[in-house]
Amino acid sequence: MLDVCLMGTGGSMPKPDRWLSSLLMRYEGKSLVIDCGEGTQLALKESGFNFKPVGLLLITHFHADHVSGLPGFLLSMGNEGRTEPLMIAGPRGISHIVRSLCVVAPGLPFEVHIAELSHTGGSFVWEDFEITAFEADHRCPCLGYKVHLPRKGKFDVEKAKARGVPLKAWKRLQDGEEVEIDGVTFTPGDVLGPPRRGLTVCYATDTRPKDTITEAARGADLLVLEGMFGSDKQERAKEAMHMTMVEAAKIAAEAEPRALWLTHFSPSVPDPSVYIDEAREIFPGAVAGVDGMRAALSFD
Amino acid sequence: MLDVCLMGTGGSMPKPDRWLSSLLMRYEGKSLVIDCGEGTQLALKESGFNFKPVGLLLITHFHADHVSGLPGFLLSMGNEGRTEPLMIAGPRGISHIVRSLCVVAPGLPFEVHIAELSHTGGSFVWEDFEITAFEADHRCPCLGYKVHLPRKGKFDVEKAKARGVPLKAWKRLQDGEEVEIDGVTFTPGDVLGPPRRGLTVCYATDTRPKDTITEAARGADLLVLEGMFGSDKQERAKEAMHMTMVEAAKIAAEAEPRALWLTHFSPSVPDPSVYIDEAREIFPGAVAGVDGMRAALSFD
Repeated sequence: MLDVCLMGTGGSMPKPDRWLSSLLMRYEGKSLVIDCGEGTQLALKESGFNFKPVGLLLITHFHADHVSGLPGFLLSMGNEGRTEPLMIAGPRGISHIVRSLCVVAPGLPFEVHIAELSHTGGSFVWEDFEITAFEADHRCPCLGYKVHLPRKGKFDVEKAKARGVPLKAWKRLQDGEEVEIDGVTFTPGDVLGPPRRGLTVCYATDTRPKDTITEAARGADLLVLEGMFGSDKQERAKEAMHMTMVEAAKIAAEAEPRALWLTHFSPSVPDPSVYIDEAREIFPGAVAGVDGMRAALSFD
Repeated sequence: MLDVCLMGTGGSMPKPDRWLSSLLMRYEGKSLVIDCGEGTQLALKESGFNFKPVGLLLITHFHADHVSGLPGFLLSMGNEGRTEPLMIAGPRGISHIVRSLCVVAPGLPFEVHIAELSHTGGSFVWEDFEITAFEADHRCPCLGYKVHLPRKGKFDVEKAKARGVPLKAWKRLQDGEEVEIDGVTFTPGDVLGPPRRGLTVCYATDTRPKDTITEAARGADLLVLEGMFGSDKQERAKEAMHMTMVEAAKIAAEAEPRALWLTHFSPSVPDPSVYIDEAREIFPGAVAGVDGMRAALSFD
């Protein structure tokens, strides 16, 4: 079960009734968080989570509403007793940003490992997750993230027998290890069927529509996109390099995810749901996000 | 009328029900704010204020809970259309802190003027306010602030007549100008009685008790002090270089302010009012602050 929580849904500035956009994903006791604006540490608490399982922060870009909550977030992690390293990944330059912001957070009781990603994207593995960053189209370098949880093939008894795999190696092979017995090396492929459909969550905010987003989102279980304005503010969205809800819905209509959550609403939009119908005409499953919205995604 | 609002009362980290410690003072359409931790921009909104009148930020020290809200605060000021310069004053090093934090707030549409104060204090005038910084006793250099609103003497008709001040100069002299008529220079002192009692608010958090605080607080209209713990955590307060509510009350008992508000409560103290009786045994007027608490101070 992959738990997903949209902890905040605001853009530009936090509001008393809306935290800044941030997404948490949790799988088997390990959590990652995308973006960390002012107040994200409070959004996390209000959504009922703790800091301890959070091992990875993914930052989309360096506008304050996506990153200025970092020092407080890290200090609160430290106050909660963290000693395990934390990884922070973001566009090239993230080291400088973290170092600058953390001038007010010296002496953290844990290490911070920083991964600088190319402005055009990149991939890495963290715990069970395969993370792919892709290029967005904003006023500054900005990344979207595809977070994929792969699923191994089913154990295939007939295959294991046919390949002469000794019984005592079955469990370890099923768990993904290679096993050598009497000079013969067996691999998980000797006992497993073909990989099964995993789970994919795709996240992009602060961007104009772009084919990299559509590609990353293709067939995702959950697509989280900014829908900063209604279509009555189409021109403003273009100027500010943001998307309307209708533009987000068009991406979804092409990429065909199983679900679409809209987020990163302008402070000038007090109730985003008033625009949801125009998005649903294009992608019927579109949902206007609200702070703390959750989903539990299961493998097929 | 001097409006004072304790916008937040928390120490260390913001909590869902408690913003970080911050004080706003407003007089004749000009406001100043002391400290700006994560979420202070929201605390200001929740207390019913706007950014526009705020022209001065006073920073006590550089721990994140007192300063990490700066980039968001400044950006929101800009989003509200500010073009007038903003002044930020704090301990020596404040320029570096502001510059580092504002790496995520480039291109502000207004100038930021920074005043670096000595670690042992300093004085300056801003609008109608006389600001005096004084040394606190924390784990890092930390300042308290005395904010004084002076009050001119009463207009004295007999004195004006006795000194032969022409009638046409009376109004300008009363307003504080010097006036020259036929080669004779008149000063406000020619028409005003002795200065009257003004209004004074004194603020100190993140400190052990220290005589500089007592001196600054002497006879203040309002003294705002940290009372981070109850006396059951006296040792912890000492170690962390903070004050208990009883220690704050002892300062008040000596300095004799007209009112004492306690603030900067530890996250480990969910309801500070449970400790207020032990503080009131020492200073009967002690009040456990709550977010948004206000007072309107009037000249005698």
